[in-house]
Amino acid sequence: MSTRSCLEYLEYLEEHKSQFLGEMLEFLRIPSISSLPEHAGDVNRAGEWVVRRLHAAGLENVRMLPTGGHPVVTADWLHAAGRPTILLYGHFDTQPVDPLHLWTNPPFEPTLRDGHVYARGASDDKGNMLIPILAMEALLKTSGALPVNVRCFFEGQEEIGSPQIPAFLDTHRDEFACDMVISADSGQFSSEQPALLVGCRGLCAVQITARGARTDLHSGIYGGTVANPIHALAQILSTLRDTDGKILVAGFYDSVVPLGREQREQLARIPFDEAAYCAQVGVDTLFGEAGYTPVERVWVRPTLEVNGIWGGFQGEGVKTVLPNEAHAKITCRLVPDQDPHRIPDLVRQHVERQTLPGVHVEVRTLPGTARPYRIPDDHPGNRAAADVLRETYGREPFTVRTGGSIPVCEMFQNVLGAYTVGFGFAQDDEQFHAPDEFFRISSFERGQEAYCRLLQRLGMEATA
Amino acid sequence: MSTRSCLEYLEYLEEHKSQFLGEMLEFLRIPSISSLPEHAGDVNRAGEWVVRRLHAAGLENVRMLPTGGHPVVTADWLHAAGRPTILLYGHFDTQPVDPLHLWTNPPFEPTLRDGHVYARGASDDKGNMLIPILAMEALLKTSGALPVNVRCFFEGQEEIGSPQIPAFLDTHRDEFACDMVISADSGQFSSEQPALLVGCRGLCAVQITARGARTDLHSGIYGGTVANPIHALAQILSTLRDTDGKILVAGFYDSVVPLGREQREQLARIPFDEAAYCAQVGVDTLFGEAGYTPVERVWVRPTLEVNGIWGGFQGEGVKTVLPNEAHAKITCRLVPDQDPHRIPDLVRQHVERQTLPGVHVEVRTLPGTARPYRIPDDHPGNRAAADVLRETYGREPFTVRTGGSIPVCEMFQNVLGAYTVGFGFAQDDEQFHAPDEFFRISSFERGQEAYCRLLQRLGMEATA
Repeated sequence: MSTRSCLEYLEYLEEHKSQFLGEMLEFLRIPSISSLPEHAGDVNRAGEWVVRRLHAAGLENVRMLPTGGHPVVTADWLHAAGRPTILLYGHFDTQPVDPLHLWTNPPFEPTLRDGHVYARGASDDKGNMLIPILAMEALLKTSGALPVNVRCFFEGQEEIGSPQIPAFLDTHRDEFACDMVISADSGQFSSEQPALLVGCRGLCAVQITARGARTDLHSGIYGGTVANPIHALAQILSTLRDTDGKILVAGFYDSVVPLGREQREQLARIPFDEAAYCAQVGVDTLFGEAGYTPVERVWVRPTLEVNGIWGGFQGEGVKTVLPNEAHAKITCRLVPDQDPHRIPDLVRQHVERQTLPGVHVEVRTLPGTARPYRIPDDHPGNRAAADVLRETYGREPFTVRTGGSIPVCEMFQNVLGAYTVGFGFAQDDEQFHAPDEFFRISSFERGQEAYCRLLQRLGMEATA
Repeated sequence: MSTRSCLEYLEYLEEHKSQFLGEMLEFLRIPSISSLPEHAGDVNRAGEWVVRRLHAAGLENVRMLPTGGHPVVTADWLHAAGRPTILLYGHFDTQPVDPLHLWTNPPFEPTLRDGHVYARGASDDKGNMLIPILAMEALLKTSGALPVNVRCFFEGQEEIGSPQIPAFLDTHRDEFACDMVISADSGQFSSEQPALLVGCRGLCAVQITARGARTDLHSGIYGGTVANPIHALAQILSTLRDTDGKILVAGFYDSVVPLGREQREQLARIPFDEAAYCAQVGVDTLFGEAGYTPVERVWVRPTLEVNGIWGGFQGEGVKTVLPNEAHAKITCRLVPDQDPHRIPDLVRQHVERQTLPGVHVEVRTLPGTARPYRIPDDHPGNRAAADVLRETYGREPFTVRTGGSIPVCEMFQNVLGAYTVGFGFAQDDEQFHAPDEFFRISSFERGQEAYCRLLQRLGMEATA
């Protein structure tokens, strides 16, 4: 790499800055919510948008592939003989938007405010997944080549746990063969402090439904003789966790690898400002399992959270009904070596041990599981990413985890035998999965430059 | 009363049978749901319908009166000098209709099936409140007079606890002066077995709201450090009642008058077929407080029921959100001498004693309270009603209560100094407050004849 070509891609990025920002806004206007069937067409439209953008960037063999669910968009550029092959990963689907009334602007009408782009999917993951596409364009348009071989894998079902991706990946394993995966669905510690992501929590989900009488009943006429499934559900939920959040489901912690001293010391080096954290989320005090630091609790300890509950009357005023159904959606975040296929059974067994006269309870496993994931700190991809981050931020990156789940990491490892290196520019305060999600325009721009450098740095590695 | 005039009103009722049924269907088509602000106009339309029907029946001074909330329709006929004055009571508002998908027919498109009229409000209370109007018409059109003085009080806010009625009644106390109230918002034990209603439970309502962070958060990024208000709410709800429904709120039972032996014997005479009851509501087993029979539990023991709960994600699939709000609506059914204004404070104090780090909980009293009510078994109105019921059904009526609440009973007693005699034809299986509410056409017709007889029988009493 000559200094001249370096300057050229920087100039290219600078010249196209406002065009690229405009394109991100265009991408964000597509309401590609993967969990809602009525938005399936929008997920497809977002995929088509990515297809067009990859074409324009100069990628080859650009296609949208059916998966049986939301599609995958792929492309490649394979002319760097003797250089590693990188699989670039990101997702173009988004979370739902409710509660809608808490958004300052409509979630799919992106708004620029204080150097941020506010929109559902801005940070997670449309803004981030667009970065490597623009970086590749800058390299291709200025030097006519990429320093590594690249395959793209952009999916439309990450937010629902990528249900069709394992089978899809298995079928297409040769087309996605690679030395490593670089994921744009990742983040940095702060605007000043880079980070290398070495692990994420796994995920599993269940829905508990409690049913009482055949229909809703009058609470005066029947109250006192017929069980109320909302009370039964509350009873069940209150037995799932201790008041500090410790999970009381028998066997839940059995496969958790205990924290070693070295690991706890590494985690203790991560600065954590409890007061600032409380102020950011708007709570008086933190919550969580006794005996663990907040960083340990979100990164290396499992959780069980009710994500939603409903039953009976939710309108204004009073309805004197004895309802006949109540529902709760639950997800668990898992850590090595918990098995996301085993945990729902443990929850089911726990519920079956409850005595709830007059109520039938069903525990249904919901789609969307992810195994907990861990990449060695010294993986070649991590070393390259660390070099680029050090250069970009002028600081040694922290070695971090995420409490979130990135199911594809484990899938890529299983099917392609490749580790996934996180290289994204989200920050934890960017309200992903919540109202007023945003992405920093500065991250969007810095990320493009960093991706150019990363591909060049990886091009200096010999193939495996 | 001559046998001849008796035959005449019977003939009149017989001749107008299909017209009257048609009118009930017309009345039921008005979606007069009092709890939903968007239906306020419909409640008004139902009142106007009642005004027209009272005019047609021959009542005088028919008017719809403003209350500050849903209106009251009044009318009178005061030409029976030396005879008692009866205040006829009923309500033309209805409960909401959700869950709508469980209705066989749309709730406001009345449908005739197997001798029943299916519609929201058919039994509670439009079908029942129409009965005395039609009975008065039959008497007026055939004999030109009523055997007693009558005032009408038909309201549009019973299903929300009649919030404006106490102040309204206080202002209009002279216009509604009476010797007793006869309420058409009442029922019989079965199609074969009449009943005299001598008491009903009181009511109070609260809403519990638990709040955590400022916004919904990502359950991966924050799960383990930020409290989940749904878990907090479930924890609270699970402490409100024992697993058998016994209420654990300190002081809740303090004012409950203990059941005497005589009272328990009277209640034990009421036949109760547990298997049939279970089959009717669709449960395997009954539920409720140890040490009390099912009849005692619904009629003379207080209850606390969650009528609705909601928070977080309720859509299809999975949303990995750590929600920031959760809500529950609760009503308590009360028995003598519990105070509906005191119970919400006890619930609030109970909740305030919980330790819930990171969660703020608010207990808000909802409008709509009713004191528990008791009329002496041998009240003159009860004696007259018993005579008519004995004649109509050929059986001695049971002395019963209802587990429901009729707030106006206590209001009429307080403001007008008059007891309320229940004289209605609903039956407990008629799904009021639930999907597929219905009213028996046979009850509608039998009720008209019985009301004619009741007014004649009351005309034989001297004024107080």
